[in-house]
Amino acid sequence: MLDYRALTALAAVIQHQGFDRAAQALHLSQSAISQRIKQLEGRIGQPLILRQSPPQATALGLRLITHLETVLHLESDLNLPLETDARIHARIAINHDSLATWFSEALGRITEDIDVDLITADQDAGIELMKRGEVMACLCAEGKAVNGGRVDRLGTMRYRAYASRDFLMRHHLLESFDRLYQAPCLVFNRDDRLQHRFLQQLGQAEPINLVHCPSSEGFVQLAASGCGFGMIPEIQAALSVQVGSLIDLAPETFIDVPLYWHSWRSSGQAMKQLRASVIKTAHRWLRQDR
Amino acid sequence: MLDYRALTALAAVIQHQGFDRAAQALHLSQSAISQRIKQLEGRIGQPLILRQSPPQATALGLRLITHLETVLHLESDLNLPLETDARIHARIAINHDSLATWFSEALGRITEDIDVDLITADQDAGIELMKRGEVMACLCAEGKAVNGGRVDRLGTMRYRAYASRDFLMRHHLLESFDRLYQAPCLVFNRDDRLQHRFLQQLGQAEPINLVHCPSSEGFVQLAASGCGFGMIPEIQAALSVQVGSLIDLAPETFIDVPLYWHSWRSSGQAMKQLRASVIKTAHRWLRQDR
Repeated sequence: MLDYRALTALAAVIQHQGFDRAAQALHLSQSAISQRIKQLEGRIGQPLILRQSPPQATALGLRLITHLETVLHLESDLNLPLETDARIHARIAINHDSLATWFSEALGRITEDIDVDLITADQDAGIELMKRGEVMACLCAEGKAVNGGRVDRLGTMRYRAYASRDFLMRHHLLESFDRLYQAPCLVFNRDDRLQHRFLQQLGQAEPINLVHCPSSEGFVQLAASGCGFGMIPEIQAALSVQVGSLIDLAPETFIDVPLYWHSWRSSGQAMKQLRASVIKTAHRWLRQDR
Repeated sequence: MLDYRALTALAAVIQHQGFDRAAQALHLSQSAISQRIKQLEGRIGQPLILRQSPPQATALGLRLITHLETVLHLESDLNLPLETDARIHARIAINHDSLATWFSEALGRITEDIDVDLITADQDAGIELMKRGEVMACLCAEGKAVNGGRVDRLGTMRYRAYASRDFLMRHHLLESFDRLYQAPCLVFNRDDRLQHRFLQQLGQAEPINLVHCPSSEGFVQLAASGCGFGMIPEIQAALSVQVGSLIDLAPETFIDVPLYWHSWRSSGQAMKQLRASVIKTAHRWLRQDR
């Protein structure tokens, strides 16, 4: 069996960002912390931590920390009358646009019981964190369950192309957007192909003039400020459309992105409640037609 | 002198995320691209690119690409009657909250002339990118100019502690927030100490129950959904306060974060215009009292 005292030391060093602070938190000496981790690394034959400032967990180290968290979740469900200082953590990967829109409602009161670490990841990157066991749950566009995991379809998020009226006028796009591909095009990052797919649907070439903005709210702001056009979730654009700062370029043309919730089959009560809450909230915010 | 054909090849491989697509874009063979970069690496004696999928620039590679962009900016100012396919890029590091709030207004029409790559970086991480020459400008909390660079003070962003009414009621914080440190506390990431500093100002202990949310808009949503309390720029919270979804916990207690614009002394006209626009817009949105 794994040495859970060593795992606890490992998790503390990462959480508190240092051997000294981990030692304080666990009421141990720094050398005890250091030794436990070294022994575990010796047994496993791989480094679990990069000794830099602040210390970083290796991929395997992260996997072990997630495993420790799962065990703590399960322990907590036993409701044993034990005194414990340790708070339970849950690392959750989530795509940017869900976090910027509806997800907080699903999270609700779970934050009272456990510490939540949200990790923003692209629609396709989140599932890799899940596969490597680095997170306890993942909200992403991948529909296939990972080994030992379960997957729930949440619905689809509809993206539409938006820009400001000022932008459309300046680029002579109000009457015809045949040359939209020549206008400044907002993209989230180098993996974001939504705008390319939209232009393709309109039968146009790839965008020439790109503006990269890796922030969900920044993206909406740039569109409203006339810096470019971009694909935005309709639920995120709704208010801006209502007040007239964004215009839907092509109401007939949109891109639907399916979203899924990945979780582990064996997880604690808190994660099961979160799953139910995510499914329920998603049904209110996401499109359910297939 | 540097081989600018090799630099152009290097930049194209990174921009188009592959040797094949770079070759297409530059109308060259893939081996020509590859050879040019190898020769440059041979001369410099260091790798400029990590040959993985997609290829990544090394730190030195990024510095050279930024240098190439600066040269292109300066060339473009010469207004020579040259045919060119190449669009000018500007990589800019910016802190999350500025991007989520006022920065888009400053960017304005510059996106018509150049391609902008915004890179979100913590208030303190941005300046490191600037020092390493990986970006052409940087908006951050560091007030000291880097070598060869200039710095402009933009004003201060005021952060206040906000939470939802529901959250305050549940935690019995409406009448006295003596025990605020025990309630779920939102933090942006492990470097975010704003909440700790706020609690310290109130004479309280460090927060116990943390919720990490590395998204500016997600942060506001979590606060409004009652998942925790957190420090939010007052200009970002204004609307939520007006509609009653957020409450200012302690109107007398706040944290002011100064913001600065870093740019290079020798840069093109476009970057000079951007600097003027950033300073002007900042004066409208940020506090100017010292």
